[in-house]
Amino acid sequence: MLKGKFITFEGPDGAGKTTVLEMLVKDINESGIDAVFTREPGGIHIAEKIREVILNKEHTEMDSRTEALLYAAARRQHLVEKVIPSINNGKHVFCDRFIDSSLAYQGYARGIGIDEVFSINEFAINGFMPDLTLYFKIDPKTGLKRIAKNKGREINRLDLEDISFHNKVQEGYEKVISSFQERIVVINANQAIDKVLQDVKNVLKEHLHF
Amino acid sequence: MLKGKFITFEGPDGAGKTTVLEMLVKDINESGIDAVFTREPGGIHIAEKIREVILNKEHTEMDSRTEALLYAAARRQHLVEKVIPSINNGKHVFCDRFIDSSLAYQGYARGIGIDEVFSINEFAINGFMPDLTLYFKIDPKTGLKRIAKNKGREINRLDLEDISFHNKVQEGYEKVISSFQERIVVINANQAIDKVLQDVKNVLKEHLHF
Repeated sequence: MLKGKFITFEGPDGAGKTTVLEMLVKDINESGIDAVFTREPGGIHIAEKIREVILNKEHTEMDSRTEALLYAAARRQHLVEKVIPSINNGKHVFCDRFIDSSLAYQGYARGIGIDEVFSINEFAINGFMPDLTLYFKIDPKTGLKRIAKNKGREINRLDLEDISFHNKVQEGYEKVISSFQERIVVINANQAIDKVLQDVKNVLKEHLHF
Repeated sequence: MLKGKFITFEGPDGAGKTTVLEMLVKDINESGIDAVFTREPGGIHIAEKIREVILNKEHTEMDSRTEALLYAAARRQHLVEKVIPSINNGKHVFCDRFIDSSLAYQGYARGIGIDEVFSINEFAINGFMPDLTLYFKIDPKTGLKRIAKNKGREINRLDLEDISFHNKVQEGYEKVISSFQERIVVINANQAIDKVLQDVKNVLKEHLHF
């Protein structure tokens, strides 16, 4: 059986990744191609348990390197239990965030270092890199406005204060893209969602002949 | 304030590490030197939570790389919350097992690869290697007998079947020792416990002037 492809979607919150992914996988499945939509921890019991440790609000002493190792552990388990078996079954797997999120958020924005966070993720994925990654590039302010709109509330003081962190995430992604130019395609996510979806479809057609 | 030293004890189960460590730290504290005895996860809440994920018997799907990343995460948290603060406070920290256990057990005996497991542990410890490591070298059969005796039962079928795994752990430790000769001192743990304790004290005197 022909193996499926592994396609990841990356970008800051509010870039429209999840919305576009859901529309896309519906379209793809209707056209008769077998595609799976997932995101970490992906309903994998062990990965959910790891995520509970990461997100527990009482864990204020959590060191950023501990956190990065836990994300890598959850990623590993989701990969071996869900992503790889699906791909071996001939399904195309679309994953909302993957290794590049760790590199941009923890490696760069949190200051651990992209190369260092890459090294533990290399261990976690053991050579299983995405075939293709679509990076949803959006102006940080536009992204923040979209988040606020999604939540049905006005943009607040904290969102605005966060702009420097969001800028750092974008800088991080730019550095990651320059390291993996052959794998990552940039999508203009400032456009209306329908237009973004169309651009994504064009890229999949061009690169993977979907 | 003068920083404390970080001393780790390594070796297979049944080598007498824990027994000797407890006797040793008692002796050292009585002589007026401030020493702390610890082991991972060391009562650190986050590290305990990570350990619960590792040891949960329902987690039969646990991948060996996931497990290695979780051990590295727990190690990181124990290090930053307990070991480093104690050392900065001038206390000598004696730790029952540390990085070399992961290298011997998961890197070698479980087959992931010593270098690969070292890379994620390098990330976890971020340069904070032990000042001195004492490796309790014991004939695997003697070690197994000692475990059986400790548990107040005869050696059983599983213990005997396990001999090949115990042999692999020893091989793993031998490889680790050859890579870190300047840090690791070998202790003959086949001897009676009192003699082992005396050898350990002599090594500490020679290397750290205790």
